[in-house]
Amino acid sequence: MTIRRVISPAVAEPPPERWSNCLVVDGVAYVSGMTARSGTTVSGNDEYEQAKVIFGKIKSLLEAAGGAMSDVVKITVFVTEIANNTKVWAARREFFTGDFPASTLVEVSALAAPEILVEIEAVAHLGKGKR
Amino acid sequence: MTIRRVISPAVAEPPPERWSNCLVVDGVAYVSGMTARSGTTVSGNDEYEQAKVIFGKIKSLLEAAGGAMSDVVKITVFVTEIANNTKVWAARREFFTGDFPASTLVEVSALAAPEILVEIEAVAHLGKGKR
Amino acid sequence: MTIRRVISPAVAEPPPERWSNCLVVDGVAYVSGMTARSGTTVSGNDEYEQAKVIFGKIKSLLEAAGGAMSDVVKITVFVTEIANNTKVWAARREFFTGDFPASTLVEVSALAAPEILVEIEAVAHLGKGKR
Repeated sequence: MTIRRVISPAVAEPPPERWSNCLVVDGVAYVSGMTARSGTTVSGNDEYEQAKVIFGKIKSLLEAAGGAMSDVVKITVFVTEIANNTKVWAARREFFTGDFPASTLVEVSALAAPEILVEIEAVAHLGKGKR
Repeated sequence: MTIRRVISPAVAEPPPERWSNCLVVDGVAYVSGMTARSGTTVSGNDEYEQAKVIFGKIKSLLEAAGGAMSDVVKITVFVTEIANNTKVWAARREFFTGDFPASTLVEVSALAAPEILVEIEAVAHLGKGKR
Repeated sequence: MTIRRVISPAVAEPPPERWSNCLVVDGVAYVSGMTARSGTTVSGNDEYEQAKVIFGKIKSLLEAAGGAMSDVVKITVFVTEIANNTKVWAARREFFTGDFPASTLVEVSALAAPEILVEIEAVAHLGKGKR
């Protein structure tokens, strides 16, 4: 099986020749660093709201891939203000149960636009989470 | 086999609904970004000392998973002062031999607390390193 | 099969006991965060030129591993000036076709030396990209 690109109608695709939101190979889904931006609009005014949008995108992509949020084994969270990490945690609690993914969260000096406060990428092993 | 959470008595667990220190699936161990903090105490006053604590945690988790440090294929190191990267290297040399893991090391603007100088995450393929 | 270190004559190896440029296990290649530096020389004065050097190194390593750029499923790009992300994209377009890799791009506060503007790591599933 070759690498498969996964598209969800719920998640805006990037322009051609940029990146893929989600690729699947060998049962592993690689989800790009997602933000709350669609086109030129960023949804959410704080890290909680933006992270909810982002986790919603990741969920849509994984479900389009035939998986679920419980299949996520690792997320990496980049924020622009680490003091607000608890806001990301609050959003995360709405998308995971049981054993949460392994996680790294660091503050970077900038994301793709000033109003983007959070970027989250994920790795999932499809069908391997508890159902 | 579903995703398995790995716990080591040598590594403090996060509170519920935060993250897992280590998840294993399909023979791959994903270790969260670890720091030298346990509870509210950060061990080590420089990058060398903190990295030693961190690599010790990663080793404990991988051994609890049935693996070893030689199974590590990739680490990502986030530091707050890149000029001190050689201190992380010095600690790393005490935990690896032969072919060292693939590695990325970048300076971020902040980690989870001001006294945290280093955060390191790891991916390991259990049982696949030289013994 | 144990973890295998991959070396390319086109890519300078780090000194002993630092890191491996590329490790392969279970058909997955893990490529370290690569820069445009070889020895003490950094090639390229902007993000476009440096990213071309870096993608060239990744290509050489993957080909030495028996793979190809089309096998890359995920890249992580660290830049020091996110406003120049389009320069990285321009270089990327010269190395990928079809479904581009999943990608994360963030701005960090510093890389290994002031003249280093970009660092890129990659994960590839060898032989799984379109040929």
